[in-house]
Amino acid sequence: MAQRPRHREAPLTKEFARIAWLERLFARTHERGTVVLGIGDDAAVLRPASRLLVWTTDACVENVHFKLSWLSAEDLGWHSYNAAVSDLAAMGARPSGALSSLALPCSIDRKIWQGIARGQARAAKALDCPVIGGNLTRASEVSIHTTAIGEARRPLRRDGAKVGDEVWLVGGVGAAAAGLSVLMRVPEAKWNSAMRTCVNVWRRPKALVQEGLGLIGKANSAIDISDGLAGDAGHIAEASGVSLVLDAEAIESAIPTRAKNVSSLLGCSALDFALTGGEDYALLATGKSARRPSFARRIGIVERGQGVWLESGQKKVRIRAGFDHFSR
Amino acid sequence: MAQRPRHREAPLTKEFARIAWLERLFARTHERGTVVLGIGDDAAVLRPASRLLVWTTDACVENVHFKLSWLSAEDLGWHSYNAAVSDLAAMGARPSGALSSLALPCSIDRKIWQGIARGQARAAKALDCPVIGGNLTRASEVSIHTTAIGEARRPLRRDGAKVGDEVWLVGGVGAAAAGLSVLMRVPEAKWNSAMRTCVNVWRRPKALVQEGLGLIGKANSAIDISDGLAGDAGHIAEASGVSLVLDAEAIESAIPTRAKNVSSLLGCSALDFALTGGEDYALLATGKSARRPSFARRIGIVERGQGVWLESGQKKVRIRAGFDHFSR
Repeated sequence: MAQRPRHREAPLTKEFARIAWLERLFARTHERGTVVLGIGDDAAVLRPASRLLVWTTDACVENVHFKLSWLSAEDLGWHSYNAAVSDLAAMGARPSGALSSLALPCSIDRKIWQGIARGQARAAKALDCPVIGGNLTRASEVSIHTTAIGEARRPLRRDGAKVGDEVWLVGGVGAAAAGLSVLMRVPEAKWNSAMRTCVNVWRRPKALVQEGLGLIGKANSAIDISDGLAGDAGHIAEASGVSLVLDAEAIESAIPTRAKNVSSLLGCSALDFALTGGEDYALLATGKSARRPSFARRIGIVERGQGVWLESGQKKVRIRAGFDHFSR
Repeated sequence: MAQRPRHREAPLTKEFARIAWLERLFARTHERGTVVLGIGDDAAVLRPASRLLVWTTDACVENVHFKLSWLSAEDLGWHSYNAAVSDLAAMGARPSGALSSLALPCSIDRKIWQGIARGQARAAKALDCPVIGGNLTRASEVSIHTTAIGEARRPLRRDGAKVGDEVWLVGGVGAAAAGLSVLMRVPEAKWNSAMRTCVNVWRRPKALVQEGLGLIGKANSAIDISDGLAGDAGHIAEASGVSLVLDAEAIESAIPTRAKNVSSLLGCSALDFALTGGEDYALLATGKSARRPSFARRIGIVERGQGVWLESGQKKVRIRAGFDHFSR
C-alpha cells in the first residue's frame, strides 16, 4: 500500500494513518501460501503454484459507474471488487490476489472510505482473493481501480468459438440493469419488493469464479457479461470470426421474474435490459452440446458469418453489438 | 483492454474505437515470450520464467500529481509509467509487463489521450516492460493507474536494514522537486537553462531498473524515493526497526549543480528539495560497506534506535519522516 501525494492540502500523516488502517484490515484477507509479502513495501510478492497467470484491471468511477447515493460504501467496495474478479472468472482462473488503487476526495468522510475498504475485504474473503497491496491517492471524485491476478491451466479466451457450438449463459441476466434503472428513475420511497431485489442484484454482484472453473475443458470460448449480452456476444463473434445467433425465448427464460415485473412497471423491455444492460456479471460461453455443464443454459448457436443475431419465432434480426440504452 | 461504461453521454462505439487504437499501439510493445495473451480479452495471460512475482500499482491524478499545463501528454504517459515501474526497480525485479487503467474526460482531445498512450508505449520499450492490457473509462479528470509485474529471485524489501549497514543512494536527488517548484512558481518565459533542465528531470523520470537488479545480493534493504529521501528513509527505519542517520554533506553532493542553482534562485534550500521532494525516482538502499556497488553513493549509516536523523558537522537532528514542503 503505497502513495505518492504531491502539492495537496491534506497532511501526509493523514494518508499514512489511512494506509496503516487499510493494512490492518486487509492483512486478515491474505493468510495463504501464495502471498510471500503483502501490504507495506514498494510492491507485493507472490509465489503462484502454476506458471500461467491471468491478469486484469477494472475501474469504478463516481458519477460514471455509480453515485454514492445509489449504494452504501460497503456495497461499492463489494461491487467494484466482484466486477474486477469477474474477468478472472470469465478466463476460468482461480484468483490469487488483488491490488486496490483508491482515489478519494480529501474531504471524504472516514465512514465512506473505511466502508469501501470493508466491502473490498468482505468480497476478498468471499472470493478467496486477498487484497495484498494497493495505492492511495487524492482525487476530486471517488474511484477504485482494482487489479487482480489468477492462475489458470488453460485460460478460456474469447477467440475460441467454433461453428456448431452452442451459446451458453451461466447466471441470470437483466436484473442488475433493471435495478440500476430503478435507482436512476424511481425515488426509494416508491420501491416495491421486486424493485428492491433488482437494486440489490446491481449493488451486490457476485463474480462466478466456481462456474468459470467449471467451464474449463468444456467451453471453447468465454467472456463475462459486463457490457450487456449483445455487446459481449459481439466480442466473442468478432474475436472468433463467427456469428452468434441468440434465441430470444431462451434469454427471456434466464431473466428473473422480478426483473420482468420491474421492467414492465418501468415501461421497459426486460429483454432489452438483458441484451444491453450488463453488470449482472453472468458468464457467456460457447461449446459443444455434449459438453454443456448442468449449470449452463443454452441460449443460441454459433454459425458461419459475423455479428450477433436475435431469433424470435420466424424473425431473425441483427442486433447492434455494444449498443447501450442508458446513453439515450 | 476492457471497459465497462455506463449511463454516460459518449457513444460506446467511440470507446471501442479508442480501445482498437490502443490495442494496435501497445501490440508493438509486447512481442516476447512471457506474454501469452495481450490486449483484447477479459484479461492478459503471462507465463513468467520464475516463480517469484513482484506486483505493484501506482496512480497519477490530474490536479494532484500533475496539471496538463505542466507537461506534454507524452511526458505524462512516460512519467506515470516510470513512476509505477520504479517500485519494481526498488524490489530488484525485472519487469514482465504492465496494465494501464486510463480514466479520461469525455471531451478530451484525441491528441491528449493518444499522446499519453504514446508516452506509455515509449516508456514500455525503454524499460522492456510491455503494456499487455488495461481498462478505459470516463471520468471528470485525467487519471492513469498503472499496475506492473516483475520477476525477482530475491526481492529487496524495506525491512532488511541492519545496524552497521551503510545507507546508499542510487541516482540524483532534488532536481525533480526543483523542477516541479519551477512549474508551480515561475512562468515559462522566465525559465533559464538550469530551470529547464530541472523541469525536464521532473517530466521525464527514469525508473532505475538495471541499478535495482545490480543491488541484488548486495543490499539488505531498498526503497524507491517517491515521497522524498526523508520520508522513504523513514519507511526503511520503521520496517526494519532501526534508525537511519543521514549525512547532510553526502546528500548535498548527490544534488546536481543545476538543481542547486535553481533552488538558490527560488530562495529554497536544495537540501530541503532533496529530503522532502521525491519524484526523482532515485533508489535508497542499505548494505554492508564491503558490498557497496560502484554506482551507489554512501550517504549515511544504520544505527540502533528509530527514526531518521540528519547529521551536519557536529549537529544531529531528527527529521520528520513524511514531511512534505508542498503542503505548506
